[in-house]
Amino acid sequence: MTSATLTLAPAATGSIACCAPLTREPLSAETAASLARTLKAVADPARLRLLSLVAAHEGGEACVCDLIEPLGLSQPTVSHHLKVLVDAGLLTREKRGVWAYFTVVPEALNALSAVLATPVAAAAPRA
Amino acid sequence: MTSATLTLAPAATGSIACCAPLTREPLSAETAASLARTLKAVADPARLRLLSLVAAHEGGEACVCDLIEPLGLSQPTVSHHLKVLVDAGLLTREKRGVWAYFTVVPEALNALSAVLATPVAAAAPRA
Repeated sequence: MTSATLTLAPAATGSIACCAPLTREPLSAETAASLARTLKAVADPARLRLLSLVAAHEGGEACVCDLIEPLGLSQPTVSHHLKVLVDAGLLTREKRGVWAYFTVVPEALNALSAVLATPVAAAAPRA
Repeated sequence: MTSATLTLAPAATGSIACCAPLTREPLSAETAASLARTLKAVADPARLRLLSLVAAHEGGEACVCDLIEPLGLSQPTVSHHLKVLVDAGLLTREKRGVWAYFTVVPEALNALSAVLATPVAAAAPRA
């Protein structure tokens, strides 16, 4: 139950300490639970597209008003998905005027990426 | 609806063509749906631990009999989770004698990893 410390924390700071590849050594139950929570936040077509749209938007940020049309979903639905991503630490939210603006937290996506990265040799039989 | 071709296919061959980072350009609806399916397969604590246990097991392969005790789940439950991972193309299964042996498909995990990897500069405002 010890193993690598993985903190994919939905921290207000957005700081994410990370991430031995999961194939390096058996994940602890706690680490697996934490990682699964964050992966669940991204394992949704609308939320994947939101992350992608926000990142690709001018200046790397977007407001709900920019996201409704390309996604083809209602504002409450888009807002719900954005909240899930913010709660998971994958987006940050900044209120300016009437709109909230969202920015991708690259460190959070990179933390997930690093956990899943697998040396191809890891699965090869030890002769 | 065009954009990058992402084939996170649960192909029998295990071949996975891949994967522009999702932050590079907006994901198409089809790509997002395919990617979400694969991410859902890994977004579960038991399945993350299974991937990790199989990869860390001697020779990079393990049978159900090796996985029940460390996971603390029943054999039918472990077998169910293994099937989800095989169907998603993340594990391969080889029957030998009475047991099936499972091996991680590193290319599949690396494909997921590559999609999530994010250049830190991508989220920075263009001055």
